Amino acid sequence: MANHREIPAQVRFPTATELDAEVPGQVITEIADLYTDLDALNLQPLWTQNARLLSKVPRPSALPWLWRHGDLRRMAERSKDLITISRGGDRRVLALANPGLGGKPFATPTLWAAIQYLGGGESAPGHRHSPAAIRFVLEGSGTITTVDGDACEMRSGDLILTPPWQFHDHANESGSPMIWFDGLDLPIVSHLDAIFFELFPGADMQPVRGRNISEGIYGGRATVPRVEGSATGPSSPLLVYRYEDTGKSLAALLAHSAGPMVSLEYINPVTGAGVLPTIGCYAHRIAARRPTVPRREVGSSVFVVYRGSGKSIIDGVEFAWGEGDVFVVPSWACVEHHANVESDLFSITDQPVIKALGLYREDFEAAQKVVGVFEGGNDV
Amino acid sequence: MANHREIPAQVRFPTATELDAEVPGQVITEIADLYTDLDALNLQPLWTQNARLLSKVPRPSALPWLWRHGDLRRMAERSKDLITISRGGDRRVLALANPGLGGKPFATPTLWAAIQYLGGGESAPGHRHSPAAIRFVLEGSGTITTVDGDACEMRSGDLILTPPWQFHDHANESGSPMIWFDGLDLPIVSHLDAIFFELFPGADMQPVRGRNISEGIYGGRATVPRVEGSATGPSSPLLVYRYEDTGKSLAALLAHSAGPMVSLEYINPVTGAGVLPTIGCYAHRIAARRPTVPRREVGSSVFVVYRGSGKSIIDGVEFAWGEGDVFVVPSWACVEHHANVESDLFSITDQPVIKALGLYREDFEAAQKVVGVFEGGNDV
Amino acid sequence: MANHREIPAQVRFPTATELDAEVPGQVITEIADLYTDLDALNLQPLWTQNARLLSKVPRPSALPWLWRHGDLRRMAERSKDLITISRGGDRRVLALANPGLGGKPFATPTLWAAIQYLGGGESAPGHRHSPAAIRFVLEGSGTITTVDGDACEMRSGDLILTPPWQFHDHANESGSPMIWFDGLDLPIVSHLDAIFFELFPGADMQPVRGRNISEGIYGGRATVPRVEGSATGPSSPLLVYRYEDTGKSLAALLAHSAGPMVSLEYINPVTGAGVLPTIGCYAHRIAARRPTVPRREVGSSVFVVYRGSGKSIIDGVEFAWGEGDVFVVPSWACVEHHANVESDLFSITDQPVIKALGLYREDFEAAQKVVGVFEGGNDV
Amino acid sequence: MANHREIPAQVRFPTATELDAEVPGQVITEIADLYTDLDALNLQPLWTQNARLLSKVPRPSALPWLWRHGDLRRMAERSKDLITISRGGDRRVLALANPGLGGKPFATPTLWAAIQYLGGGESAPGHRHSPAAIRFVLEGSGTITTVDGDACEMRSGDLILTPPWQFHDHANESGSPMIWFDGLDLPIVSHLDAIFFELFPGADMQPVRGRNISEGIYGGRATVPRVEGSATGPSSPLLVYRYEDTGKSLAALLAHSAGPMVSLEYINPVTGAGVLPTIGCYAHRIAARRPTVPRREVGSSVFVVYRGSGKSIIDGVEFAWGEGDVFVVPSWACVEHHANVESDLFSITDQPVIKALGLYREDFEAAQKVVGVFEGGNDV
Repeated sequence: MANHREIPAQVRFPTATELDAEVPGQVITEIADLYTDLDALNLQPLWTQNARLLSKVPRPSALPWLWRHGDLRRMAERSKDLITISRGGDRRVLALANPGLGGKPFATPTLWAAIQYLGGGESAPGHRHSPAAIRFVLEGSGTITTVDGDACEMRSGDLILTPPWQFHDHANESGSPMIWFDGLDLPIVSHLDAIFFELFPGADMQPVRGRNISEGIYGGRATVPRVEGSATGPSSPLLVYRYEDTGKSLAALLAHSAGPMVSLEYINPVTGAGVLPTIGCYAHRIAARRPTVPRREVGSSVFVVYRGSGKSIIDGVEFAWGEGDVFVVPSWACVEHHANVESDLFSITDQPVIKALGLYREDFEAAQKVVGVFEGGNDV
Repeated sequence: MANHREIPAQVRFPTATELDAEVPGQVITEIADLYTDLDALNLQPLWTQNARLLSKVPRPSALPWLWRHGDLRRMAERSKDLITISRGGDRRVLALANPGLGGKPFATPTLWAAIQYLGGGESAPGHRHSPAAIRFVLEGSGTITTVDGDACEMRSGDLILTPPWQFHDHANESGSPMIWFDGLDLPIVSHLDAIFFELFPGADMQPVRGRNISEGIYGGRATVPRVEGSATGPSSPLLVYRYEDTGKSLAALLAHSAGPMVSLEYINPVTGAGVLPTIGCYAHRIAARRPTVPRREVGSSVFVVYRGSGKSIIDGVEFAWGEGDVFVVPSWACVEHHANVESDLFSITDQPVIKALGLYREDFEAAQKVVGVFEGGNDV
Repeated sequence: MANHREIPAQVRFPTATELDAEVPGQVITEIADLYTDLDALNLQPLWTQNARLLSKVPRPSALPWLWRHGDLRRMAERSKDLITISRGGDRRVLALANPGLGGKPFATPTLWAAIQYLGGGESAPGHRHSPAAIRFVLEGSGTITTVDGDACEMRSGDLILTPPWQFHDHANESGSPMIWFDGLDLPIVSHLDAIFFELFPGADMQPVRGRNISEGIYGGRATVPRVEGSATGPSSPLLVYRYEDTGKSLAALLAHSAGPMVSLEYINPVTGAGVLPTIGCYAHRIAARRPTVPRREVGSSVFVVYRGSGKSIIDGVEFAWGEGDVFVVPSWACVEHHANVESDLFSITDQPVIKALGLYREDFEAAQKVVGVFEGGNDV
Repeated sequence: MANHREIPAQVRFPTATELDAEVPGQVITEIADLYTDLDALNLQPLWTQNARLLSKVPRPSALPWLWRHGDLRRMAERSKDLITISRGGDRRVLALANPGLGGKPFATPTLWAAIQYLGGGESAPGHRHSPAAIRFVLEGSGTITTVDGDACEMRSGDLILTPPWQFHDHANESGSPMIWFDGLDLPIVSHLDAIFFELFPGADMQPVRGRNISEGIYGGRATVPRVEGSATGPSSPLLVYRYEDTGKSLAALLAHSAGPMVSLEYINPVTGAGVLPTIGCYAHRIAARRPTVPRREVGSSVFVVYRGSGKSIIDGVEFAWGEGDVFVVPSWACVEHHANVESDLFSITDQPVIKALGLYREDFEAAQKVVGVFEGGNDV
C-alpha cells in the first residue's frame, strides 16, 4: 500500500523516483518530505527528470509548419485597411507563430519570421535594437530602408540587412504597397536577456546621407576597399544584396553542379563569414524533378519560396509549396526538397549560433516514407 | 459603448491596439474578427506587443538568488540516505532552480548549476551528452572523474571539465563523501534543440587509460605540445585545473594590482580562448574591505564562494555570503562585491555565448543604494 | 703608431672597434688575433657592425625605379622574333631587375615583376611551383590560362591567379600576341628556401575541365557557395577578377569618396582576406589633378599603370608615368601620386607578409620637395 | 664558327639560351645585342635562368653547421678581456655566421644566433628595435633583462623574450659572468626592409617598475587575466619561461609518449599561438638510445644543446653534440637525432613565418646512410 502513496502534487518537478514494493512507508514519507523541502529551497532533484532533460536526440517543441502566401497576403491587406498608421500600424507586421511554441510569436526558438506590409506613401519610423533584422522582398519596389543614413532601395528578391543597433526606418515612396519577409534573431536575443531598444531621437525619420552607399563601397565582386576605421564589427557593412546578382550566381552554380540543389550563403565581404553572427542567409536553386538527399542538421530554419513550386518532406510529412509560401524546419528534422519546376528558395537559419557554440551536427538519410500531408494553414 | 467591446479572449496575444473613442463599432468588430482569423492562421500582430518584445534594456525573468551552503549540504546528505544508488541516486544532483524561471531546474536561461554529492565508495556510471559540464570541487578528495579514459583526480578547489560528447563517469575511491559544484550549458543547448545523449555502452564504468593524462600533456606553464591530430576542437584538451596553481596566480595578480579584485579566466592552452565555447570559467580574489565598482554586463553568471565571506549588492539588494554559498547574477544586473576578509570566488558565465553572437555590453555605475536584504534561501 | 695598426684585411666583418690612442700595441695585436680566430670559427663580433645591422629606419637596397611601356613592348617583340619556342621561348618573360639588387632578376626583395609575351597561336606548357603568380592583362584577349583544369579567359584589365602548387599553362588561341604583367612571390619564397617545382607530367598542356569554372562557382557578388571539401586553403579559390567589375567598383567608390584616390583589394571571397598570403593585389583609381598625401609604409610594391597618365614622387624624385609603365616603390619610401587625367593603377605588394609577421608601420608626411627627375629606363 | 660566338660577358644573367648549330651567325649576333639591350634597360630574360630559379626542391645556401661549446665559451672569454665596455663591448655578442651565407653574420636566411657574454657587474644599455629577440640562458644566474620596465630574472635554462619595439637592457647584478644564447629574426626583418632602431633616451638603463611582473600576471597554468587594454599584439605578454616548469612538462610528456622525442612549444598564453610571429621556440627531450624518425621540413632551425649528449644526422652527415653546442638545420634538410643519454635541446625556428605564408611542407624518410662526419668548428 505504502508504495502507492502519492508524492505531494505541489512539488513541481516530475516524481519519477522508482521505489520497489519493499520500501517501507516511512522511507516514502521521508522522500516526500525531502521533495517538499527541496522545493521550498528552490532545489530540484536531477534523478527524477534526467531522461526528460537529456534526450537521445533533439526533441524540438517547434513544429514543422507552413504559411500560405494567399493567407499572408490577405491578412496583410485586411490589416492595412483596419490598422492605419494612427492605430499603431506603423510596423504592420504579422509574425509567424509556430504552434509548438506555446503562443509565442516566434517561428523557432531562435528565429522571428514575419510578413511586413507597407502601403504606398506610408512609412515606418526609425528605431534601433540589439536584435538584427533581415528583409527579403517578396513583391514590389519603391520602398527604401534607411540604415544609419544609407537609403537602401528595395526590389523584389533583394536582401536588405539592418544590423544590430543601427537606426533604421522604411519609406514607401511609390503608390503601391510593398510586402517583404522579415527575419530577426529576436527570440534568441530575448532568451539571452540581451534586448536593447531605442527610438530615433527627435524625428520619425532619420536624415538620409545618400542612396545605396554601402552597395557602392562594399558591393564589388571579390574586391573590398580597406576603409579606415570601418567594417570591423561582426555584421556585414554591405547592406543590400541584389537578386539580379544572386540569380546569376545560382544559374552559374547549377550549371556547374551535378546535384539537385545549389546554395549560396550571403556573406560579409570583408570577412567571408555570414552576414550576421546570429542569422545565416541563403539562396537556393532547386532543379526541376531532382529530389535532394534527406538530411538532418542541428539548428532551425525558415524558408521563403521566391520562385517556382514543389514540396518538401519534413519528418515524413509532405509540405506542398508555391511562390510566397513560408515554412519552418525545426532542429534535427529530416528534410528533402522536390521542385516541380526550377525553384528558388531563400532561407534564414540559426546555424551561425549553433556552429559558434560547437553544437553543429548533420546526418544524411535514405528517402523518407511519406506518412502525412500538411493541412494546416488553410485559408480561413 | 462600442469602444469598450472586448477583443476576443481566446486570442492569446496581447490586444493593446489603441483605438480612440470615435472609432466606429463596425471597425472594432472587424479588428476583433481579424485577430481571431490571425490566431487561427498562427499569425500574430507585432503592433500589439512590440513594447513588450523590445524593451529599452534587458528585463530578465531570472532573479538574483542565493543558496546557502548549509541548506545545500544538508539536503545533499538527506538525499544520500534516502536516494540510494538503487533508487536512482547514481547522479545525486540537486539543481539550483531560479524562482524566476517558472519551475525549470535552471539557474539562468543558459546555465545549469547544481550540487553533486557522491558518497564514499559510490560511483556515477558513464554517459556522454552534447551539453558541456564543469565541476568545481567544494570539499573532499578521493574521487576521480574519468573523461574518455583519462582518470582525473579531484581535490578541493580544482576545476574539472567534461567537454561535450566525451564519456565521463565519477568514482569515489575514498571512504568519505565528496561534494562538488556542477555547471552545465544544458539550458541553452536545450533551448537550441541540440541535446544528444548516450549511455556508455556495455558497462557502468569506462576503462581507464591512465591518471591525469591531459594534465601531463597539456598542463605546462605556457608551453604546449603540438600533438598530431588532437586538440583542434573548440573545447580545451586540458581537463583539470588545480587550485594550487590558480591560487598562486591569484596571489601574484593581486600583488600586482591596485584594484579590489583580480580575475583569472581558465583557458584552453592550445588556443588561449576560454575552456568551452558555451561556458566561461573564472577565479576571482577579492581583497578585504575594498568594494568593487558596480557593473552591469549582458550575460548571466553563477558564483560559488570558495573561501572567505562578504556580500554582493545586486540591483540594490544585499546578498551576504560565506564559504560554499552559491549565487546567481542575471543579465544586466548591477553588481558590486564587498569582502570581509580576502575571499576567493569561482564563477561560470555565458559570456562566451554573448560575445560570440556580438551581444556583449557592459556598463559601470556609481555605488548602489541598498534597498533590501536577501532573505530567501533560509534554512528549513 | 700602434693605434694605426691594421686589423687583418682577410677578416670579412667590419672592423669598427674603436680604440683610443693609449691602447697598447699588445692589446691591438691580441684583438687582431681574436678577430682572426673568430673568423676561423665562423663567428662574428656584433660590436663592430651593429650600427650597420640596426638602422634607425629601413635602408632598402632596392631602388625606386620605372620601366617604360615602350621599352617593355619593344624588347618583348624583339624577343618574340629571336627567342622562338624551340629556342627556349616557351616562357617569354622579361623580368624587371631592380638595379639596387645586385643583378638579381627581382623587382624588390620579395616580389618578382615581369612582362610576358605570348604570340598568336603560341602556348606556354604546364608546370606548377610553390611560388604563387598573378597575371594582370595589359593588352589583348584570346589567351586562356588553365589552372588545375579550369580554363580562365584573359582580357585586358583582368587579374588571373595561379596559386601555389597548381598546374598552369597558357595558350593564345587568337591570331594576335598578348602581353600581360606577371607578379610572383618568388624572391621571398626563394629567400625562405621553400621552392618546389614540377613539370606537368606526360604532356605539354593539361586537360581542360571547363571554362571559367571558378568564376561560376566563386564569382558571386557577396555570396559564396559552401562547397564541401574545397576552398579551405590560404589562397583564393576564385581565379579571375574582371576589369569590368573592378572598374565599376572603382567608379562607385570614387563617387562616394572625398579623397584623391580610392583603392580596392582583390580578395578571397571565402575568407575576405587578400587573394594570397604572400602577395596583395590592389586596384587604384586616382582623380585628375588631386595629389595624394605623401605616405611611407613598411613593405615594397610594384605598380602597373593601366589607364591614364601622371607622375609619382618617390623619396623626392619625380617619376612620370603613362599607360603600360611599371614602377617600383621600395619599403619605407615616401610616395605621392599625381594624375593628369583620371588614372587606374594596378599594384602588387608584400604587405600580407609584412602584416603577418607583425612588422607593418605607416607614416604620413607633408608634400615632398622634388629634388630630381627619374631619367633611367629611357628607350635604347 | 658563328655558333661559338660569345654572348657578351658583361651581361650579368646566365646565358643558357640553347641554339642549335644551324642558327645563322646573324641571329646569334642579334640575340647578343638583345641581351645587351635588355641589360641596359634592367631587364632579364627568364628563359636563360628558370632552371636555376625554380628548383625541384629547396636548395638552401645555408649549410648544416655546428659550433662547439668550448669554442664559444673560450672566444667569449677572450672577448671579455679585450673588448671592455669602453671599447664597444656593451653588447659582447658573437654571432654564429653560417659559412654558406657569404660572410653574413646570420645562422640561416631568417635567423640570427649568437652567444652573449656579460661579466659580473657589467650591463648592456637599453635600446629597442623592430627585430624580436629571445634569450636562452646557458649558464649562470644573477642577470636581469629589463623589458619595458619589467626586470626579468634570468636563470639557467630559462627563456626570456624581448618582443619587437620594447626597450630592453641587461644588467649582471652578480659577481660572475653569465652566458646566454641570443636568437633574433634580424635576417628576415632585414631582408624585408623593416628594421627600426632606437636607443633608450636619456640614460643607459631604463627605470625598473618591478621584478618578473609579466610572470606574475601572465604566468599562470592555463589561466590568464583578461587585463584591460593589454596583450592584444602578436607577441606574448609573458616574457619569461622557467626551465623548472618546462623540464617538468617534458618529463610528464615523455612519460606519456611512446616516441623517442617529445617537443613543447613555448606559447603566448593569451592566444595559444607561438611566442612571436617570426620565431618559434621549442624545448625537446630525447630519450636515450631511441633515434627519431628522419624528417624534412620547410624552414630553418637552430638547436642549442642544454643537457645531455648525442648526435644528429643531417643530410647524411653526423654531427656529434654535447652541452652548450649549437647547430643549424637548413630548410628541407633531412634530420634525425640520437641521444646517448636523455637529452634536452632548445630550438628556434622560422616555422611561424613559413606557415603564415602557406609554404610549410614536411616529409618523413627511412633511416639515412651516414656518408660523413662533421669536422668543422674544431678548436683553434
